[in-house]
Amino acid sequence: MGNNITVLGAGAWGTTFGQVLADAGNAVTMWAIEPEIVEGIRDHHRNAVRLPVVEQLPDNMTATGDRADAVKDADIVVVAIAAQFARVALAEFKDLIPEDAIVVSLMKGIERNTNKRMDEVVRETLDLPAERFAAISGPNLSKEIALRNPAATVVGCADIENARKVAEACTTAYFKPFVTTDVIGLEMCGSLKNVTALAVGMARGAGYGENTAAMIETRGLAELTALGAAAGADPKTFAGLAGVGDLIATCGSPLSRNYTFGSNLGKGLSVEEATKVSNGVAEGVPTTDAWWRWASSWVCRPRWRIR
Amino acid sequence: MGNNITVLGAGAWGTTFGQVLADAGNAVTMWAIEPEIVEGIRDHHRNAVRLPVVEQLPDNMTATGDRADAVKDADIVVVAIAAQFARVALAEFKDLIPEDAIVVSLMKGIERNTNKRMDEVVRETLDLPAERFAAISGPNLSKEIALRNPAATVVGCADIENARKVAEACTTAYFKPFVTTDVIGLEMCGSLKNVTALAVGMARGAGYGENTAAMIETRGLAELTALGAAAGADPKTFAGLAGVGDLIATCGSPLSRNYTFGSNLGKGLSVEEATKVSNGVAEGVPTTDAWWRWASSWVCRPRWRIR
Repeated sequence: MGNNITVLGAGAWGTTFGQVLADAGNAVTMWAIEPEIVEGIRDHHRNAVRLPVVEQLPDNMTATGDRADAVKDADIVVVAIAAQFARVALAEFKDLIPEDAIVVSLMKGIERNTNKRMDEVVRETLDLPAERFAAISGPNLSKEIALRNPAATVVGCADIENARKVAEACTTAYFKPFVTTDVIGLEMCGSLKNVTALAVGMARGAGYGENTAAMIETRGLAELTALGAAAGADPKTFAGLAGVGDLIATCGSPLSRNYTFGSNLGKGLSVEEATKVSNGVAEGVPTTDAWWRWASSWVCRPRWRIR
Repeated sequence: MGNNITVLGAGAWGTTFGQVLADAGNAVTMWAIEPEIVEGIRDHHRNAVRLPVVEQLPDNMTATGDRADAVKDADIVVVAIAAQFARVALAEFKDLIPEDAIVVSLMKGIERNTNKRMDEVVRETLDLPAERFAAISGPNLSKEIALRNPAATVVGCADIENARKVAEACTTAYFKPFVTTDVIGLEMCGSLKNVTALAVGMARGAGYGENTAAMIETRGLAELTALGAAAGADPKTFAGLAGVGDLIATCGSPLSRNYTFGSNLGKGLSVEEATKVSNGVAEGVPTTDAWWRWASSWVCRPRWRIR
C-alpha cells in the first residue's frame, strides 16, 4: 500500500516532509550530503542539526549518502534542496532516477541569473516530461508540521492523476493536500508571496498595525493574481491555500526571513545594511527583481504599449 | 468643497470615522445620546469615554444631542450605532433626514430575531431607496485609524456615482476607499468574517499556529464566497479588502472579541462559560446561527435537493 519515497535534502522542511510521508505509511529514504545527518537519521532517528524539535523520527524513515542507492527503488522522488543549488545537485541524479518515478518539488523561489521557476529548473535538469513533475506549495511552516499541528497544502501536476497519487501518499490525520493542474500558479505563489511579505514587514517595521498589513496583503494578492493571469496561471490558485493561505502564514510569522528583512527596511535600514544584519539577503529581494524584470518586459510588448 | 456630514453614534468607530471625515475637509456633526459625550466633543474636542486614544479631535468636528438639529443640513448621514439597536434608534430619524441625503452604514452584523442584514434594517426603517444607501466595510480596526495609520476600505452603493461621492468625502492621506455596487457582498463579508474569526480563535486556543490559522482562513473564505454567490453577491468582493482583507485584520488582532471568544472555546470552555468570561456573547455566535439557518433553508429548496 505504501510507496518507496526518497527525499533529496534533509533540511528542516525536507526532514519534516519525510516524517509526513512516513506517518502516511510509506517507506521513506532521506538522502543528504552531510555524513552526520545521514548517520543521525539512519542510526538514531534524529536530525539534530536541521530539525532538533523532533525527538524521534518514525521507524519507517532511513537515510543514505549514496545517490544511486537512495533513488534506485523510488516510486516518488521529493526534491527539498535549497533553490539556488537545485540545478547543480540534481544533475548528479539525472541518470539514476527510475524512468517511471514522479519527481516532486518542495522548493520555492526563482533561480538567480536564469530567472527560472523551480519547475523549469527541475524538468530541464532531469529531462522530465510535465506529467512526471509535481510541485507542493501551501501554508506550511515546517516547525509546526514537524509537531504534527493541522495543516493543508496543494499538490500540482499537469496530470491530475499523478497529483492525486502524490496527494494520497502524503495524506495524514494532520496533513491535508488538495490537488490542481496549475503548476505555474503554484510556483508563482511560492516565490511571489515573499515580495508581499517584504512589503508587510516594511509596514510593521515602520510601526503600523493590522489594517495596514491587511491592506498590503490584499492589494498585493490582487497584483500577484494579475501577474499570474498574465503568465498563464489560474487566478483561482492565488485565492487558495498556496496563494492567500501561504501569504497569511508567511506574513503572520515573525520568524519569516522576508518579514524580518522587510521590517529592518521599514525601520530605515538600507538593503545593504539589512543584508548585513540578517547574515545575507532574503529570498524576496532577488525575487522582486526577477519578477519586476519579467513584468516590465511583458508590458513593453508592442500590443500593451500605450500609444 | 466639503460636505455637511452627520455621524449618528459616537462610539469608537463612529468618532474615528468622524475624524477621518473632518480630516478630509468636511463639516462634521456627531450625534450622541449621552450628554457628557456631546459636551466633550463640542466643548473640548475630546471623546474621553469612547476614544481616549485621541487627545484632540479636529476643529471642524462638533456634536449635538438634538436629533433634528443634527441632521437638518446633512448632505451625508453616517450611521454608527450598535447593530442590534439600529432599528429602534433610526426610527426617530425617519422624518428628519433631508430627502436627498445619502445614508451610509458603518455597521457590521445581522439583526437578531429578524436575521436581516444592516442594509435591509436601515433601508426599511428609513424607507430609503437603494441608490441613497451606502455601506462601508474593510480592514478598519478603529484604534489604528484613530492614530491615522494607513488603511483602505470599500464603499458600496447600488448607484456607483453615490459610492464615489461618499468615497471622495472620506479620502485622506491615510485612508483610501475603493468603490463597488455590491452592497450585499459587503454586508455579508462584514458579518461572516466573525464566524471564521471564531474558528481561527478556537484553533489558537487549542494551541495551534500559523499554518492552521491560514488553512482555516483560506478554506473559510472559500465557504463565505460560495455562500455569497448563492445570495447574489459578487465573489470578487470576498477576494478584496472587505473580504480577505477584513478577515486578515480581524484574525490577526488578539483584541478582536470574536477571536478571544473562539480562543476560550478552543481551550475547552462551553459557549455558556465563554459568554460569562467575555461579559456577553461575541457577535459571531448569533451570526453563525443566522447564516446556518439561511444556508440550510437554501440548500433545501427543491431544485437543490439531491434526488
